[in-house]
Amino acid sequence: MEFGVWILEFDLMVQIIYGIHPVKEALKSSRLQIQKILIGTQTPHPPLQSILDLAKKRKVPVTVTDKESLERMAKDGLHQNIIGIIKEIPYSSVEEILSYWRKEGTKAFILILDGIQDPQNFGSLIRTASGCGAHGIIIPKDRSVGITPAVIKTSAGATAHLPIAKVVNIATTIDFLKKEGIWVYGASGETKDLIYQLDLNIDLAIVIGAEGKGIRPLVKKKCDRLFSIPMKGPLTSFNASVSGGMILYEVMRQRTLHNNPPSPPFSKGRLGGF
Amino acid sequence: MEFGVWILEFDLMVQIIYGIHPVKEALKSSRLQIQKILIGTQTPHPPLQSILDLAKKRKVPVTVTDKESLERMAKDGLHQNIIGIIKEIPYSSVEEILSYWRKEGTKAFILILDGIQDPQNFGSLIRTASGCGAHGIIIPKDRSVGITPAVIKTSAGATAHLPIAKVVNIATTIDFLKKEGIWVYGASGETKDLIYQLDLNIDLAIVIGAEGKGIRPLVKKKCDRLFSIPMKGPLTSFNASVSGGMILYEVMRQRTLHNNPPSPPFSKGRLGGF
Repeated sequence: MEFGVWILEFDLMVQIIYGIHPVKEALKSSRLQIQKILIGTQTPHPPLQSILDLAKKRKVPVTVTDKESLERMAKDGLHQNIIGIIKEIPYSSVEEILSYWRKEGTKAFILILDGIQDPQNFGSLIRTASGCGAHGIIIPKDRSVGITPAVIKTSAGATAHLPIAKVVNIATTIDFLKKEGIWVYGASGETKDLIYQLDLNIDLAIVIGAEGKGIRPLVKKKCDRLFSIPMKGPLTSFNASVSGGMILYEVMRQRTLHNNPPSPPFSKGRLGGF
Repeated sequence: MEFGVWILEFDLMVQIIYGIHPVKEALKSSRLQIQKILIGTQTPHPPLQSILDLAKKRKVPVTVTDKESLERMAKDGLHQNIIGIIKEIPYSSVEEILSYWRKEGTKAFILILDGIQDPQNFGSLIRTASGCGAHGIIIPKDRSVGITPAVIKTSAGATAHLPIAKVVNIATTIDFLKKEGIWVYGASGETKDLIYQLDLNIDLAIVIGAEGKGIRPLVKKKCDRLFSIPMKGPLTSFNASVSGGMILYEVMRQRTLHNNPPSPPFSKGRLGGF
């Protein structure tokens, strides 16, 4: 039964990736194995041609088809005339994330997403986590969007590089991470501790909750610390992918600053005159 | 001719706002004048009912219609069973933004978007700018998405609160801001100066360029300083609304820190044990 559901999800959701960026990144990645590429034009423009050259080098077969077929396959997603058929859903395990961290030799930086629903938000968070130097993302098996073609597209190809693990129980996983010496900090609007007040240059997993709902109570209880993002004005929240971006940026800022401390005091002054 | 185009844009694009958040914020705002509200149900749920109560208080007439009409009007946008008809496009002038800043008595914080194309990015940046305490946003008249229903929706209602000015010439506007004593810093991937190395607790306008293209050369030349966001990994850029969020967060962080300097050194430590 479990197996049947898996196959179904595989067939319906994660068989293809589309768009110039995602297909290119997938071709470069050792994690995603592209079996075949379909293009919707006989006369590819230079960005598309560069992918075809790369595919040739990697010995991935390319088939020319019509735009309409691509549209049907991409289900209205922005396919940009190119679709890649991938071999399997590229989920990693938590252990793989930890081994990636240990190989890198930096402080651990793991993102736990406790129930993100929107593919755009998930894709954007994968892209941001990759760009901020995270070692991996952990999501729950239920009540969360998985790695769908729309997610891969929004991630601008980052899905091909960043390990993403799907676990049955986030709370248990947090216990496991703690035992590995990793601190677990959770984003919560209710606390007054602001994120930049915390030392984030430690072995760290950051938990971000679902859009509008936040972290579930049981998971929140497992967190070593909670923090919030300062906010002004009449609105009560930032968009999930934006607040995630702020949090991941703050971790990256502290670590970059720690590794490259400022030497002379920074001047302020116009470069051009007025 | 100019007038004709204006009317056309008004009729096609900016006559309506939709969604629970946007309509609620618009009812609370003095800037957007809602003339009429349409709902798609006879039995409103509590969040919808609270808007109807507010509308009654504000003497805004409510009409019950069918879901299909709302769908047609919202052009596939997520209308959440409610549409508001607004009186006019809520653009402000640069002078209004400056007078809002002076009334607030804080350091100036203006966002200049040099040609954002995507309504989701624009809406998200409006929401983020509002939440980070910006005084207003300036966009160019051409080569930029305007305030469309999709933008208003994505902004989660922030469009109703934050002044947005549309100007003919961004370069000339920058000259004007400089004369008013405001520093102009531009986001650029090409510079090595990282954003957090700059003192942002000054009277400041931040320029962010178009998705993928960045700030136009002429506008870039006008900037007093350029800065970049640190980035790791194989990708070369963040999503426009995410990088904008990081920049706006950094300004807010520095200002919040300046106004509330830390007293004892911040401890790090688990709140829960293991």
